[in-house]
Amino acid sequence: MLKIRRVERIAALAKMLVDRPQELLPLSFFCEYFGIAKSTLSEDILSVRRSFALFRLGVVETVYGAAGGVRYIPYREGEAANRVLTEIAARLTADERIIPGGFLYMSDILYDWRLMNAVGEIFMTRFAALRPDCIMTVETKGILPAMMVARAFNKPLVIARRDSRVTEGSALSINYVSGSTKRIQTMSLTKRALAPGRRVLIIDDFMKAGGTAKGMRELVRESGSEAVGVGVLVATAEPERKLVEAYMPLLVLREVNEEARRVRVEPQLLAKEAEHE
Amino acid sequence: MLKIRRVERIAALAKMLVDRPQELLPLSFFCEYFGIAKSTLSEDILSVRRSFALFRLGVVETVYGAAGGVRYIPYREGEAANRVLTEIAARLTADERIIPGGFLYMSDILYDWRLMNAVGEIFMTRFAALRPDCIMTVETKGILPAMMVARAFNKPLVIARRDSRVTEGSALSINYVSGSTKRIQTMSLTKRALAPGRRVLIIDDFMKAGGTAKGMRELVRESGSEAVGVGVLVATAEPERKLVEAYMPLLVLREVNEEARRVRVEPQLLAKEAEHE
Repeated sequence: MLKIRRVERIAALAKMLVDRPQELLPLSFFCEYFGIAKSTLSEDILSVRRSFALFRLGVVETVYGAAGGVRYIPYREGEAANRVLTEIAARLTADERIIPGGFLYMSDILYDWRLMNAVGEIFMTRFAALRPDCIMTVETKGILPAMMVARAFNKPLVIARRDSRVTEGSALSINYVSGSTKRIQTMSLTKRALAPGRRVLIIDDFMKAGGTAKGMRELVRESGSEAVGVGVLVATAEPERKLVEAYMPLLVLREVNEEARRVRVEPQLLAKEAEHE
Repeated sequence: MLKIRRVERIAALAKMLVDRPQELLPLSFFCEYFGIAKSTLSEDILSVRRSFALFRLGVVETVYGAAGGVRYIPYREGEAANRVLTEIAARLTADERIIPGGFLYMSDILYDWRLMNAVGEIFMTRFAALRPDCIMTVETKGILPAMMVARAFNKPLVIARRDSRVTEGSALSINYVSGSTKRIQTMSLTKRALAPGRRVLIIDDFMKAGGTAKGMRELVRESGSEAVGVGVLVATAEPERKLVEAYMPLLVLREVNEEARRVRVEPQLLAKEAEHE
């Protein structure tokens, strides 16, 4: 085999850690892969950890003991989070986004993987203490942010459907009342997707009255699991009182004024600096 | 500022490149960011390039000249691609996946971001010559693989809907005949999503007769754009003749035998080794 320089090993180590967030990778795996001793690997890991801490690229943790290893946690907070939320707010505040009926066109932002990747990391950082077993959303537009939250937590994603499809097998269905339109809607979840006793984090793209989130909470409860939190990318300021009690928005939509062609969006910035070092 | 060691700079450089696939990042950006001269940066980039080539983690390219820079291309081919496709095939070949009606439960695989990330890179590698401007799919299950293809190409994702939603503004709708059920279905695309004259790569999770892919091709043509390719994660072997002429499956479903509880899936492996170095 070619002679591998230390810098080359470290570039590969950095990429491999970043590619598998939250996964505890055994030290022995890297020792074998690079053909190095544990002491050398420890020094390499220390360099990657220092680098990521210095440039605020997330945290590299070492867990000691027989079941130990190294893992990368993509925390994103302080300036790195605020910059992304401010960017999304600025992009949302464009009058050409106003759709007749007072809606706001958001799909291009929801389908932008770079922004959603950052959003996933921000939700993971803010919800880390909840230790969810899986992430749930309902089709369609919530899927992208929810997928990226699932990525940042390295937990499975569960997607409720607006109808029950034959290709997913037997399903649990509930009816719920949409908070804003007051219409009765159906939401269903294939039984294969969610085992009982899980801690479920609910993620959606948008919340107005909170009817959809309430429906998801109910679906989780009916499945024998527990909804430990609700995160939404954008929540409207009005109505102030939502159908779910606790939820965390990353942005608050203060105003969509169709006549004055005015949109006001407020990013939910946190001043807190990283404590994960 | 703290003294930054070379290995620390290289770990950060590797992560920052990997985080922004296909994006041409100006050398001056990194020179300023790390506070180093261009010659030092060139050496650092060379180390990351060598590392990624050695460990088959993708390609780092330098583009020279005034508009030049450095970019990371997440090529995945040869063994790195075959391993993933073989893993997906093995997971699909489980009799408990058979759903009454001869369908196959695939959602857990489609919602697995690690597998879909790899699938996105494999499609990007196989479709690189097509140089698409954007990636298109139709809701719901195609969204995850399509998003990851969009990520690997660093191009926008466009999602057609099964119905037209008021929150997306004016939309173009077509009716199409589902190839397998022979029912008439509707598919729509908001006008904001796709400007005319684009090169569109269509990605979907599953193809049986090809009616949905044909519908998407039509929607693209009606939008004044061109469908340059169709990629599907899984295509059935039967019917052999699909409603679209050219398509590329990553896996072929040979048999779902409900009575014998047997599933046969064939990964489409390529022996070709990397030529991108």
